[in-house]
Amino acid sequence: MEISDTELMLLGLVAEMPRHGYELEQVIVHRAMREWTAIGFSSIYFLLGKLQKRGLIRAYTSRASNRTKAQIPGADSQISDQESEPNTKPRKVFTVSKKGMRILKNQALRSLREISAHYSSLTRGLLQWPFLSREEALAALQDRLEALRSEEDRLSGLQLDQQPLPDYENAMYDFALSQIESEYEWVKRTAEYMETKPWN
Amino acid sequence: MEISDTELMLLGLVAEMPRHGYELEQVIVHRAMREWTAIGFSSIYFLLGKLQKRGLIRAYTSRASNRTKAQIPGADSQISDQESEPNTKPRKVFTVSKKGMRILKNQALRSLREISAHYSSLTRGLLQWPFLSREEALAALQDRLEALRSEEDRLSGLQLDQQPLPDYENAMYDFALSQIESEYEWVKRTAEYMETKPWN
Repeated sequence: MEISDTELMLLGLVAEMPRHGYELEQVIVHRAMREWTAIGFSSIYFLLGKLQKRGLIRAYTSRASNRTKAQIPGADSQISDQESEPNTKPRKVFTVSKKGMRILKNQALRSLREISAHYSSLTRGLLQWPFLSREEALAALQDRLEALRSEEDRLSGLQLDQQPLPDYENAMYDFALSQIESEYEWVKRTAEYMETKPWN
Repeated sequence: MEISDTELMLLGLVAEMPRHGYELEQVIVHRAMREWTAIGFSSIYFLLGKLQKRGLIRAYTSRASNRTKAQIPGADSQISDQESEPNTKPRKVFTVSKKGMRILKNQALRSLREISAHYSSLTRGLLQWPFLSREEALAALQDRLEALRSEEDRLSGLQLDQQPLPDYENAMYDFALSQIESEYEWVKRTAEYMETKPWN
């Protein structure tokens, strides 16, 4: 069985601990996980449903947080009930199944093993090179160098904000940053070459 | 007006010279353009329709290739007609409009200027690191190194097969290869580090 990149991410989060849908969105934001996989807010519930149907996760209903509140001694039970009303709705909590854990491991190993197609805006732009004027094209490459520096700063900052991170998560940031650095060097070198050579 | 990556590629091909739909598919295959942008065979006609509706390309009807065949002196016109029957249908030929050329240039410069999100199977796999055993994870990284070498060979071979290529197309291959090489070095370094450190 194959699951998508976003399904793998959700499965991993549910495998860490039982979680409900809204909590998943919070964790995804808090841990900046959209850096690694594109996932829309609205698709989380849809994907959870798919994972459940295939027996990779199980759902049970929880009212735990609500009951805890109502049992606080001395609390005005009427107000407390009103205030916590959004929480009184039974919530679906998801856990990983044995089968789900097996698929999770297989798919994670497969992601490590197999390279994925990687399309870059850079090659898509270069493909149209003959239609551009020398000045415009070279200026655009200079702008790209600045964009790469900004992205490097943004990602380094994000990595710093998240500390302490486990080794493997720092490795993810380091990898992303190493690819940016490599692209920067390539663009710089190529822009210099394009500047010296006769135009097209 | 913004157009998609695949629309930009089609627009560029039509801007090179007037082309009909099936010819576009042939050029895309022949020049291995799916290395740079994912485009399905069936979506070409749909996207051409979209570009036409927005006034970026124009379509006219051509029977030219058919007439040429029928006029070859001494040809058995009956057989020739039957043989060329698939070609006798009037064909829609697409050309770029003035507006289309403007959008093409703008979008190409934008692609050069702006970096795009880049999701890698590597970081998606690393994210699930805690669920994996040391042996499995390290073996998967070794497999990835082999996959990267194969991809390097495949892409270099493709570049060689296509020679002679203009400078900017060689640059596209060089860039893709430089990203693969950078990833290879990173995976090698990281696998060595992960091997020496205590597991999770």
